[in-house]
Amino acid sequence: MTRYEQQRNFLKSNFHEFKHIKTDKIKGIAQPPIVKPFDPESLIIDLPKVSRDVVSKDNIFDCIGQRRSTRFYSADTLSLEELSYLLWATQGITGMSKNGLTLRTVPCSGATHTFETYLMIMRVEGIPQGIYRYLPVEHKLLFMFELDQLEQKIDAITLDQPFVPNFARKASVLFAWSTTPYRSEWKYDISAHKKILIDVGHVCQNLYLASESIGAGACAIGIYDQKLIDGVLELDGDEEFVIYLGAVGKKRE
Amino acid sequence: MTRYEQQRNFLKSNFHEFKHIKTDKIKGIAQPPIVKPFDPESLIIDLPKVSRDVVSKDNIFDCIGQRRSTRFYSADTLSLEELSYLLWATQGITGMSKNGLTLRTVPCSGATHTFETYLMIMRVEGIPQGIYRYLPVEHKLLFMFELDQLEQKIDAITLDQPFVPNFARKASVLFAWSTTPYRSEWKYDISAHKKILIDVGHVCQNLYLASESIGAGACAIGIYDQKLIDGVLELDGDEEFVIYLGAVGKKRE
Repeated sequence: MTRYEQQRNFLKSNFHEFKHIKTDKIKGIAQPPIVKPFDPESLIIDLPKVSRDVVSKDNIFDCIGQRRSTRFYSADTLSLEELSYLLWATQGITGMSKNGLTLRTVPCSGATHTFETYLMIMRVEGIPQGIYRYLPVEHKLLFMFELDQLEQKIDAITLDQPFVPNFARKASVLFAWSTTPYRSEWKYDISAHKKILIDVGHVCQNLYLASESIGAGACAIGIYDQKLIDGVLELDGDEEFVIYLGAVGKKRE
Repeated sequence: MTRYEQQRNFLKSNFHEFKHIKTDKIKGIAQPPIVKPFDPESLIIDLPKVSRDVVSKDNIFDCIGQRRSTRFYSADTLSLEELSYLLWATQGITGMSKNGLTLRTVPCSGATHTFETYLMIMRVEGIPQGIYRYLPVEHKLLFMFELDQLEQKIDAITLDQPFVPNFARKASVLFAWSTTPYRSEWKYDISAHKKILIDVGHVCQNLYLASESIGAGACAIGIYDQKLIDGVLELDGDEEFVIYLGAVGKKRE
């Protein structure tokens, strides 16, 4: 089979063998943590309560119709209230299932939610530049570290941006979603991976629409330097690795 | 490499060789059609102009916060105005790029938009049950054919619905998105396929939110019988095949 054929096959729902697979869940192996653990001694930043007051363009019809991928940003900062809203819109927990899984603002096959949200923050009011992680259960931000030459590293990470080279460094914040595939493999085995990619598309579309609703613009980035960003975020690149990026900044007038 | 490793690798952005690949675009091979051609002698149904008047829950904050995957539907029909809005929200054309590509309500890497939208219509006001295709350039519906035992075929197609068996047959309409991968391969070669899956996630998230805004609920379906649905929709299963499904119906009170 050629690589093309293999990759096309990956897009399909050819999981007839899945019916006969004993998944780790069926085998009785313990479910992995539903979110990444963190050191409670870390520097944790409270996020403002999510409020509709940050929304300036509130009609969903306008947000859907006027959304565009936005690669030019003003120098305006995002407020912490706005960042709080974007995090909620993309990964916020809005309920719990009977069996202890998180229900979120985005759908996810089997509520397995394999994603963690890392933020490379350039310009958010009151938040020093650096690398952060969203804690969805707590709705808080975990400060990871400052990063020397943050903008240059973002240029290197986002290597293939043909239209507007190096636009991401001018965003207020660069979202980087990682996946921990075992959270879904535990339940879905070989059928997990197709779903994971679709699910991160759900997430990013909410980033687009929520950005539009606060006078900001988003642009997804699908081609990036895998090793470099996994290294920067201190991910092992196997059990957890980045799968998609989204830059957000206020629109130019 | 194990199948697990292969599939995890597929999620990554390991396209270093892509820089050195002569894509069909670079080779000067003509771009494939940006939408699927159709026979102008077909039965074509006008869709009402898309209007914000169909939206009953218009605040995007509420739509994002209250969205849930919905597997129980009332017996109410969707109106044709509502269906028109859902098609626009998921694949509607809202502009053209300088080089003749469509800009839509959803982002898509390189504006390659590899999707076609097929509808299995059960209960839409004024529209006979059957199989239809959305024509995004014209914003019209193309009638394909009636299908005997539509509900039973939907049961067979949507084979793995553990929570609520055979819920999809009770929807008003089942969206089935196909991909024609060459539209993206022409430009992105081996890096096309990861993007295609993410992009259909963008599409489906808009289906969720737009459904929420009209008092309807959606539920995505990622596991289905590939051969069966490709056969039903008369797709060749290689150059074009289904990649994702979404059921929509009015919510129960």
